[in-house]
Amino acid sequence: MDSLRMKLSEIAVKISCQMVADSDPVISRVAGIEEAGPGDLTFVANRKYIRHIKTTRASAIILGDDLPTVTLPSLRTSNPYLAFAKALELFYDPLEAPQGVHSSAIISPNVIIGANARIGPFAVIGEGCVLGRDVVVYAHAVVYPHAHVGDGAVLHAHAVVREHCRIGARVILQNGVVIGSDGFGFAPKEDGSYYKIVQTGRVIVEDDVEVGANTTIDRAAVGDTIIRRGAKLDNLVQIGHGAQVGENSVLAAQVGLAGSTRLGRNVRVGGQAGFAGHLEVGDNAVITAQSGTSHDVQPGAVVSGSPAMDNAAWLRSVVALPKLSDLIKKVRDLEKELTSLKSRV
Amino acid sequence: MDSLRMKLSEIAVKISCQMVADSDPVISRVAGIEEAGPGDLTFVANRKYIRHIKTTRASAIILGDDLPTVTLPSLRTSNPYLAFAKALELFYDPLEAPQGVHSSAIISPNVIIGANARIGPFAVIGEGCVLGRDVVVYAHAVVYPHAHVGDGAVLHAHAVVREHCRIGARVILQNGVVIGSDGFGFAPKEDGSYYKIVQTGRVIVEDDVEVGANTTIDRAAVGDTIIRRGAKLDNLVQIGHGAQVGENSVLAAQVGLAGSTRLGRNVRVGGQAGFAGHLEVGDNAVITAQSGTSHDVQPGAVVSGSPAMDNAAWLRSVVALPKLSDLIKKVRDLEKELTSLKSRV
Amino acid sequence: MDSLRMKLSEIAVKISCQMVADSDPVISRVAGIEEAGPGDLTFVANRKYIRHIKTTRASAIILGDDLPTVTLPSLRTSNPYLAFAKALELFYDPLEAPQGVHSSAIISPNVIIGANARIGPFAVIGEGCVLGRDVVVYAHAVVYPHAHVGDGAVLHAHAVVREHCRIGARVILQNGVVIGSDGFGFAPKEDGSYYKIVQTGRVIVEDDVEVGANTTIDRAAVGDTIIRRGAKLDNLVQIGHGAQVGENSVLAAQVGLAGSTRLGRNVRVGGQAGFAGHLEVGDNAVITAQSGTSHDVQPGAVVSGSPAMDNAAWLRSVVALPKLSDLIKKVRDLEKELTSLKSRV
Repeated sequence: MDSLRMKLSEIAVKISCQMVADSDPVISRVAGIEEAGPGDLTFVANRKYIRHIKTTRASAIILGDDLPTVTLPSLRTSNPYLAFAKALELFYDPLEAPQGVHSSAIISPNVIIGANARIGPFAVIGEGCVLGRDVVVYAHAVVYPHAHVGDGAVLHAHAVVREHCRIGARVILQNGVVIGSDGFGFAPKEDGSYYKIVQTGRVIVEDDVEVGANTTIDRAAVGDTIIRRGAKLDNLVQIGHGAQVGENSVLAAQVGLAGSTRLGRNVRVGGQAGFAGHLEVGDNAVITAQSGTSHDVQPGAVVSGSPAMDNAAWLRSVVALPKLSDLIKKVRDLEKELTSLKSRV
Repeated sequence: MDSLRMKLSEIAVKISCQMVADSDPVISRVAGIEEAGPGDLTFVANRKYIRHIKTTRASAIILGDDLPTVTLPSLRTSNPYLAFAKALELFYDPLEAPQGVHSSAIISPNVIIGANARIGPFAVIGEGCVLGRDVVVYAHAVVYPHAHVGDGAVLHAHAVVREHCRIGARVILQNGVVIGSDGFGFAPKEDGSYYKIVQTGRVIVEDDVEVGANTTIDRAAVGDTIIRRGAKLDNLVQIGHGAQVGENSVLAAQVGLAGSTRLGRNVRVGGQAGFAGHLEVGDNAVITAQSGTSHDVQPGAVVSGSPAMDNAAWLRSVVALPKLSDLIKKVRDLEKELTSLKSRV
Repeated sequence: MDSLRMKLSEIAVKISCQMVADSDPVISRVAGIEEAGPGDLTFVANRKYIRHIKTTRASAIILGDDLPTVTLPSLRTSNPYLAFAKALELFYDPLEAPQGVHSSAIISPNVIIGANARIGPFAVIGEGCVLGRDVVVYAHAVVYPHAHVGDGAVLHAHAVVREHCRIGARVILQNGVVIGSDGFGFAPKEDGSYYKIVQTGRVIVEDDVEVGANTTIDRAAVGDTIIRRGAKLDNLVQIGHGAQVGENSVLAAQVGLAGSTRLGRNVRVGGQAGFAGHLEVGDNAVITAQSGTSHDVQPGAVVSGSPAMDNAAWLRSVVALPKLSDLIKKVRDLEKELTSLKSRV
């Protein structure tokens, strides 16, 4: 994992950075700024960590072009986080799934599997499925009948893709993901019980999406639930029936979208935020953590709070709230003073 | 899936609606009002979509008796949502699990399996289990020893039923559901560490319950955790040890019930709402999304907010909150004016 | 399960309590105070249930030394909850996993397995793994390559331990737990899409930790995610990349920790609470349910609300909030009165 060694100048070339250094240290690892020691390359991507530059024991550092000169040998770039990601890959030996189809996997009839697909122990691929080239299906993943899985997609252990759903190219499903579970649709009957509505829609996960562990994405009664190209969903997220997540939108952990709500492109949603059903959220909107959105959100808006409001208004409310109990006393005093004053006028 | 074609008049008979139309169009699909085209039957169940009736390209529509006359051929009923559910079934070819017990499934000794049970690849049924007639156990579902599964119940891939738990007739467990995991019970010891309390209780899931993907229902140290007949739980819901969910109650996604809390009948709980432990929530109560209930709730009450309060009071607070920072300034001004006035009296 | 019978005096000795009784009833079960009947031993651990002591039909009761004298035969102790836990074990016959390695389990090459390990059907143990003595791996659990599982650890059905992660001794992973899924790390590119950052870190779960059903703990890009000795995590919890949970800390269900946040020792976190990333939470802090912590928390502090504040301030705000709409009217009235008064001075 860290047997490799490389000169800083070689790394600079490989990850397209400009090297600013009096020496050319040998690097054997990429590490966080607090943990790094001699031989390590570190980085500053979060401004909270700039203060550690002076004290880090790292041999070199990746820095944004906009940061001041440092004494440490540095690799400069306009996108230090991306450079860090690429540097990491130089030293990391990723998990490689074994070649081929494991003898214990069950491949149903009428399945098409692309070249170089890797399918692990006890995986089950249902009838009529189509799996692309270079697909990796880890142990215990289950693909129900008539689903499609695109080229280079990765299904981790215990991921499930339900019947008729479609997973795009290079999609990554982390462990325990459920794609295409039945939407929460029940018609109330007169006696107070419910009639289950068959969920005939599909879930479409477009190319380059990543779905976090134990996240669930429901199918709808009619029409498709769609996660558009490049979107990233963290762990334990719930996507309701018929919802849509726009291109390159990012949803942090434990977010919940109720049915038929549509997020635009490049929407960013903080952890544990929730959305009522049947909403439209515009492109580039930012929905902060734990907020509860019950109305449409304009493109580019920043909303917070439960129920969610404009972020600036929310911040004012949040600062004011702890003053409320004192304010109540103050108003009571004012009333008394005013009454007393009136009696004197 | 949509090869079937049927005249609207035939559909009217099959789903018990009154047909109001000048023609008798041939229908080949049920579709949402915005997506529908020629040959499609659509519906309005959510009032938000009434405005689309004029512009839909559908050939016919299912409508409530209470809605105004429309020019589109329509099927009228007092329960349009139920009629829609039944219409969908006419055109949908549902997933059928293969007959019989797959050769790779492991059926332990002393298991009783009813007629026509279907058990998929790699399913594991523990010792002493009883499975009813027409049970469907998909690939990779695991039933621990001494559990009961009722007639016609469906366990989707990766569902787990733990030891001694009981699943009623026609219960549906979506993928990744965990029934009977150990309750979160630990006795604090003097050194600050915890002693695990054995969780000897069972989880009882009564007839006609549906449990959403990756939802978890814990067993208790003593006594049973009970989900009563007809209740519906969405995805990623947490039911704590010894809690009870009443008949026909409906819990949206990501709701959490702490231990020993009891919901009455026909309670409706919005997404991401939470309940403290040891509470009683009365029949027909409505608990809105993201609320946090820490006190008992009266039957029929509607509560909102965190901590939860009467919904009407909460709505007033929510409207008032953004005015708070201005109010603080206003009171400061009043104080100044009053001081100045006092000096003049 | 309840065939055993034991005199109360015998139980007193076995669970180290002082018996205070005029008789020595035969006990055959431990039960909750409301459900208990003749032959049952019950207990009061939660003060809410003290009122039931007079009416319980139990034959005997475990009580704290600090509670008043009762007529029921009682077992007295300074730690009644712990005594209850031990009494339960006397009457409970826990699930025993079958001895040995099931013939269907797949043990990869170069795996070391300790004495008396039990490995269930379809379990998959990856290359280079080390499993300690007395480990129990239930059906369908998956251990990716190069992971370590400590002595006496229990992995329930569908638990996953990803590559290179380490699980300590006596750790319990409930069903569906995911240890070591990829952290949510993506570097934004100029075109608005994201570049996946390889997550090279490990998840370290120290000794005596319990992790609840379907909880997810992510690995980080660099450095380890650590759950320290004795911590207890309930169901559906999310631990972000590089976070740390301190010794004996307790996290209720559906809690979320964003990346790099560190909780100290003996921290207690209520259900559905959330933490922003890169925070420090001091030892013995208490974070109440549904709160949203976005700043560091001092040792011993009690914080509540979203955004979280000092609990006492939050309680004042929460009491004051429903009075806000009346306050707004009152201030409007004051303004009018003052204006009228000014005109008269």
